[in-house]
Amino acid sequence: MGKVNLAETLSTFSAYWDPRIVSELNGQHVKLAKLKGSFVWHRHEQEDELFLVLRGRLRLEMRDEVVTLDEGEFFVVPRGVEHRPVADDEVHVLLFEPAGTLNTGDVRNERTVDSPDRI
Amino acid sequence: MGKVNLAETLSTFSAYWDPRIVSELNGQHVKLAKLKGSFVWHRHEQEDELFLVLRGRLRLEMRDEVVTLDEGEFFVVPRGVEHRPVADDEVHVLLFEPAGTLNTGDVRNERTVDSPDRI
Repeated sequence: MGKVNLAETLSTFSAYWDPRIVSELNGQHVKLAKLKGSFVWHRHEQEDELFLVLRGRLRLEMRDEVVTLDEGEFFVVPRGVEHRPVADDEVHVLLFEPAGTLNTGDVRNERTVDSPDRI
Repeated sequence: MGKVNLAETLSTFSAYWDPRIVSELNGQHVKLAKLKGSFVWHRHEQEDELFLVLRGRLRLEMRDEVVTLDEGEFFVVPRGVEHRPVADDEVHVLLFEPAGTLNTGDVRNERTVDSPDRI
């Protein structure tokens, strides 16, 4: 695998809530995604999930806490914690999580992406 | 653990080649480091190591390839691959690697940091 330029890679797709796998290491995936609007409430039973904001402002709603992330800030949603990402305007994020983590966690709906594209 | 602001965290230390652990998830560490000059040639037998450049230009020298990373670019050095990070000017990097990864890999010298500080 060669080097990855985050901005260039983000410029290759425009769909929201459709994460792309850009790298894999130590059984973990690095993903990039564009977000806008409200996602579904869900949890990952076995996986901690890191959100690093590259552009915009992301609100991570949890049942007893809300974390707001601006560019250059990250937060780890611990396994088992129900959360809902909300982006009032377009947000670009880098995700770091175990390979195989499903974007909608314990929920299946029209936003579930079973096999994210690799870039 | 709360959210991490990368720039603010980097402003809290100035030592080069002295990575700080800023988060842990799924058995992996997120580290921040400031680099300047040439590091030691080393390899990690069991660990892939991700370098994401947040500021400056980093040269990752390997025996049969050199990868140059600017701000917003990352590269994964696969396990077993000998490498030497070189920063002509100050560089800020984010590292993803398994918890317990030693900064100098299979080499021990004055730059070895056995127990990185946690911020």
